Amino acid sequence: RSPSPGRREDEDDLARRCSTFMTSPVTDLHELRRRPEDMKTKMELLIMETQAQVCRALAQVDGVADFSVDRWERKEGGGGITCVLQDGRVFEKAGVSVSVVHGNLSEDAAKQMRSRGKVLKMKDGKLPFTAMGVSSVIHPKNPHAPTMHFNYRYFEVEEVDGNKHWWFGGGCDLSPTYLNQEDAVHFHRTLKEACDQHGPDIYPKFKKWCDDYFHIVHRGERRGIGGIFFDDLNSPSKEEAFHLVQTCAKAVVPSYIPIVRKHCDDSFTPQEKMWQQLRRGRYVEFNLLYDRGTKFGLFTPGSRIESILMSLPLTARWEYMHSPPENSKEAEILKVLRNPRDWVH
Amino acid sequence: RSPSPGRREDEDDLARRCSTFMTSPVTDLHELRRRPEDMKTKMELLIMETQAQVCRALAQVDGVADFSVDRWERKEGGGGITCVLQDGRVFEKAGVSVSVVHGNLSEDAAKQMRSRGKVLKMKDGKLPFTAMGVSSVIHPKNPHAPTMHFNYRYFEVEEVDGNKHWWFGGGCDLSPTYLNQEDAVHFHRTLKEACDQHGPDIYPKFKKWCDDYFHIVHRGERRGIGGIFFDDLNSPSKEEAFHLVQTCAKAVVPSYIPIVRKHCDDSFTPQEKMWQQLRRGRYVEFNLLYDRGTKFGLFTPGSRIESILMSLPLTARWEYMHSPPENSKEAEILKVLRNPRDWVH
Repeated sequence: RSPSPGRREDEDDLARRCSTFMTSPVTDLHELRRRPEDMKTKMELLIMETQAQVCRALAQVDGVADFSVDRWERKEGGGGITCVLQDGRVFEKAGVSVSVVHGNLSEDAAKQMRSRGKVLKMKDGKLPFTAMGVSSVIHPKNPHAPTMHFNYRYFEVEEVDGNKHWWFGGGCDLSPTYLNQEDAVHFHRTLKEACDQHGPDIYPKFKKWCDDYFHIVHRGERRGIGGIFFDDLNSPSKEEAFHLVQTCAKAVVPSYIPIVRKHCDDSFTPQEKMWQQLRRGRYVEFNLLYDRGTKFGLFTPGSRIESILMSLPLTARWEYMHSPPENSKEAEILKVLRNPRDWVH
Repeated sequence: RSPSPGRREDEDDLARRCSTFMTSPVTDLHELRRRPEDMKTKMELLIMETQAQVCRALAQVDGVADFSVDRWERKEGGGGITCVLQDGRVFEKAGVSVSVVHGNLSEDAAKQMRSRGKVLKMKDGKLPFTAMGVSSVIHPKNPHAPTMHFNYRYFEVEEVDGNKHWWFGGGCDLSPTYLNQEDAVHFHRTLKEACDQHGPDIYPKFKKWCDDYFHIVHRGERRGIGGIFFDDLNSPSKEEAFHLVQTCAKAVVPSYIPIVRKHCDDSFTPQEKMWQQLRRGRYVEFNLLYDRGTKFGLFTPGSRIESILMSLPLTARWEYMHSPPENSKEAEILKVLRNPRDWVH
C-alpha cells in the first residue's frame, strides 16, 4: 500500500510538511522520499515536527525573544538542528535539539548495550547504528513556572549477520521550584491520557520508571515531580511503538504550555528566586553526575558539546548546608522530591 | 629514639599543638598519644595544622566573615571537621575540610585500586583501610582574584596476610578568571621551591601531572593554570614522602594569600563578573564529571555530601555558544587553558 517514491503529489506532501519545520530536516529530502515507509523517515519527520511545535508555542509565550536555529554536522555521520532561546522575557534558557546520527558504534558503546540485556554480534569491533531524537529542557525565569524536560528517541543497530535491532526511548518530566498541586495533576493527567490511548498499564509503568530514573542518589531526592520515562521499547510492534511515541510527543505542548503561561507573570520574592537557584544547582548535579544521555553524549567522539549542555540552566547556586525551615513552602516540595507521590489514578 | 607515651611533657606538647587547631582532632587524644610515631598520627596532626593555618589566613584577608566549624561522624568509622566561610567580604565560598575515616573497603573500591596497579588480597571481600586528608576550595568574589584548590591525603590498607600498603597524594592548583602573568609565576615558583627541597625532578613531574589531571576533556580546556598534583606516592620512604607532603602543605598560604590580598579590592566590570560566572560553570563541569575524589566521595556509603560538594561555587552560569571576541582578555586565558604553559624554569 505504500506509494511509489517520486510521485509528484507525495513530493508536494513532504515539502508541505517540511515547510512547517524550523529548517529542513537533517537527512536530505531525496533520501527521505526514497524511503517513505522506513521508520527512520517517519521518526525524523516526527522529531522535526515536535521541535517546531514546541519552539513556536514557547516563542509565543515568551513574546519577545525568539529561537536561534543552528544546523550542525557530525563528521562521523549525520548531524542536528539545535534551537535555543536565551534570556527572553519568560524563559531564562529554552533549548529544543534534534539529532540524527549514524556510523559505527564503538566497542565501549556496544558494551553499554550488552549490560542493558542486548548481546550484539559486531564485525571487526564495529556495529553500524542510527540514532535520532528530539531533546529539550526549558528553564523559565519565574520561580513559580517549572522547568520541563522531554526527549523522544529511536535507535537501530545492525549485527554482522544482518540482524536488525530497533527500540524507542523517551519521556517528559517536570521540575518545579515550588509545589503546585493543580499544575502537578494537570501535567500528569495530560501524559496519562496520552499513554492510556495505547493501554492502561503504560502510564503507571512509565511514571514509576521516571521516578526511579531522575533520582539524585547522593541527595536522596528526585530531580522533580516526575512524569513519564521509558527505554528499550520494542513491542508490541515497530508501528505501534511509534504511535505511542507520537502520541506522547504531541502531549508535550498541552501538558506544559498552560502551566508556564499561568505562572510566567506571577510575583515573587528574592527568597523565592534564591530557592529556584538552589534547585537549579540540583538540576546540574543530576545532569552531570547521573544522566545517561548527557554522559553518553559528552564521552562520544564527534558529539556537539554545546547541544548536549544546553540542558544546563543559565544560572545555578550551591550553598553549604542549606536547609529550609520546617513547614515552609521549600520544605513542602522537598518532601515530595524525597517521596514521590501519585498525582492521578 | 621515640619518647615513651604518656610522659607529662609530651602530653603538654600535643595539647599545645592541638590548641592551635580549629577544634580538637578527629581521633581521640588518648589514641594519638598512644602512637606518636605512627604515620597516622603525624599525618592527622599535619592536616589539622594545615586546616587551621589556611582558615586563619583566609579569615584575616576577609576581615568580616569567619569560618563555621562542623564536626561530623561517619557511622562506618571516623569522621571529619568541615570549615566553611560563605558570602564574606572577600570570599564567595571558602571551604577547608579534614577527614579521617577508617573501616573496610568495598570490593568496588578495592577494584578501583587494582586498576591503578595495586593487587590487594582481600579477606571475605573486605579490606581494612584508613584514609585521611585535608581538602579545600577557595572561591573569591572579585573576578581578578583566582580560585584555589588544594588537597593532601594519606592512605593505608592491610591485606589478609597482614601486608600493609601506604601512599600519599595531593596537590595545589590555581583557576584564575583572567590571566595575570605575575600571579601565575608567583604561584608556580612558590610550589617549585617547596618541591625543589626534595629533589629537582619533583616539580616538573607534578606540574605535568596537574595539567593532565585537571583536564575538562569535552571542552579541550584545563580547569585552570595548574600547579602540582600527585598520587600513589610511596617512595623513597614513608618519612621522606611525608616530609615532601609537609613542605607542600606549608606552601599553600604563601603561594595563594599574597595573590588574593593583592586583587580582592580590584575594580571590575559587570562583564568581568559574568566571565567569572561562566568559568565557575566550567569548574562545576570538571568537579562533577571528572574529579575522582568527588565521585569516589559521592558514591561511597556514609560519606558527608555537604563536605564533598562544598567545592562547588556559590553561583555559576552556562550560556549556549558563548565565545569571547578574538584578542580579548577572555580569549587570552582560554588560550592558556587550551595549551598549558611553563611558568618557571
